[in-house]
Amino acid sequence: MKIGVLGTGMVGSTIATKLIALGQEVMLGSRSPGSEKAAAWAQANGANASQGSYAQAARFGEILFNCTQGTASIEALQSAGAENLKAKILIDIANPLDFSRGAPPTLSICNTDSLGERIQRTFPETKVVKTLNTVNCEVMVNPTLVPGDHDIFLCGNDAGAKARVTDILKQWFGWRSVIDLGDISAARATEQMMPIWLRLYGVLSTLHFNVRVVAASRSSSQ
Amino acid sequence: MKIGVLGTGMVGSTIATKLIALGQEVMLGSRSPGSEKAAAWAQANGANASQGSYAQAARFGEILFNCTQGTASIEALQSAGAENLKAKILIDIANPLDFSRGAPPTLSICNTDSLGERIQRTFPETKVVKTLNTVNCEVMVNPTLVPGDHDIFLCGNDAGAKARVTDILKQWFGWRSVIDLGDISAARATEQMMPIWLRLYGVLSTLHFNVRVVAASRSSSQ
Repeated sequence: MKIGVLGTGMVGSTIATKLIALGQEVMLGSRSPGSEKAAAWAQANGANASQGSYAQAARFGEILFNCTQGTASIEALQSAGAENLKAKILIDIANPLDFSRGAPPTLSICNTDSLGERIQRTFPETKVVKTLNTVNCEVMVNPTLVPGDHDIFLCGNDAGAKARVTDILKQWFGWRSVIDLGDISAARATEQMMPIWLRLYGVLSTLHFNVRVVAASRSSSQ
Repeated sequence: MKIGVLGTGMVGSTIATKLIALGQEVMLGSRSPGSEKAAAWAQANGANASQGSYAQAARFGEILFNCTQGTASIEALQSAGAENLKAKILIDIANPLDFSRGAPPTLSICNTDSLGERIQRTFPETKVVKTLNTVNCEVMVNPTLVPGDHDIFLCGNDAGAKARVTDILKQWFGWRSVIDLGDISAARATEQMMPIWLRLYGVLSTLHFNVRVVAASRSSSQ
């Protein structure tokens, strides 16, 4: 199927390259279409790969991935155009990480709001599903990089969209456990996991980690 | 040894009762010493149990637990008195949960600061160690309520205090894995896990859950 991936950074190109490997048609959307980076990606990824503006990629895709920088996502999506996002599933992977005060980053939105909610409010006719934002991009598309059982979280207001995205996570990306946290306001919970992710990265010295939710009521491989 | 537990809510009484079971001498400190709740706890827990004001409990304890409500912790600790906290280990379990806007609660401090840091700044001569705030109080003192391997986080500025608290967590409370996240500013990371904890509680319908950090570099039971 046709998929638009917005954002040409590490997350966007990792997602887009995986989708190509799965046989999908992918347009990588960027603020600067035709840039060396976007052109190189399209060139390297064969006939199913193309690149264009945010608006072109959004128009192209039946399903869209938001892989833009979180602090610039609203602006990027406005540039993509509400008409091109309308009625589509937008898988929001971005975190509102603000590096303007240096490292470690803080969150530009948190606590009483989230980027996921803000995107949903700005584009009420788009089906926003927040997921994958709690792991490194290599783990997003290859969860077996982390051994054993571990979980990916998902939230959104549209049950059908969440079921569809759960299928994508499981069947395309190989996730075995997807935990539905509820409506899009749960994006506050997963976006606020950035600080613990960053600390654990410091402790573990690997990007390939995740969390497993452990409870008596959960069996293995659930 | 003599331990002061500040706060007579569910967390404080659970911690205090566990410490009594371990044979420690415990004074439960409250804003309203002599209240029915504090008196009943002391009465029910034998000769090693006593109750008093925040200041009395802080003076009594060689090690202190902050189990007060996070939004009132600074005030409670000021009432305990900097002199009574001086040079002591203060195990900070509180979360700055703000229910003033209803449920779910938001955080009264987050992102660019944390309750743990604020306590450390307010009482610079106290050795603040933040831990246990990411699990339900029954799990804090009985981690086997959650099956298999799972982790508790710890942070603080004083290495000796963290080593001591790690011993308490492992030898007294039975934790097998304690992850040191670094200095007290890592309290931002664990306090901001409240939103995911609250969402998972909604999904799992049990208080007895936790997370396991999974990475190729970690072995089981580490």
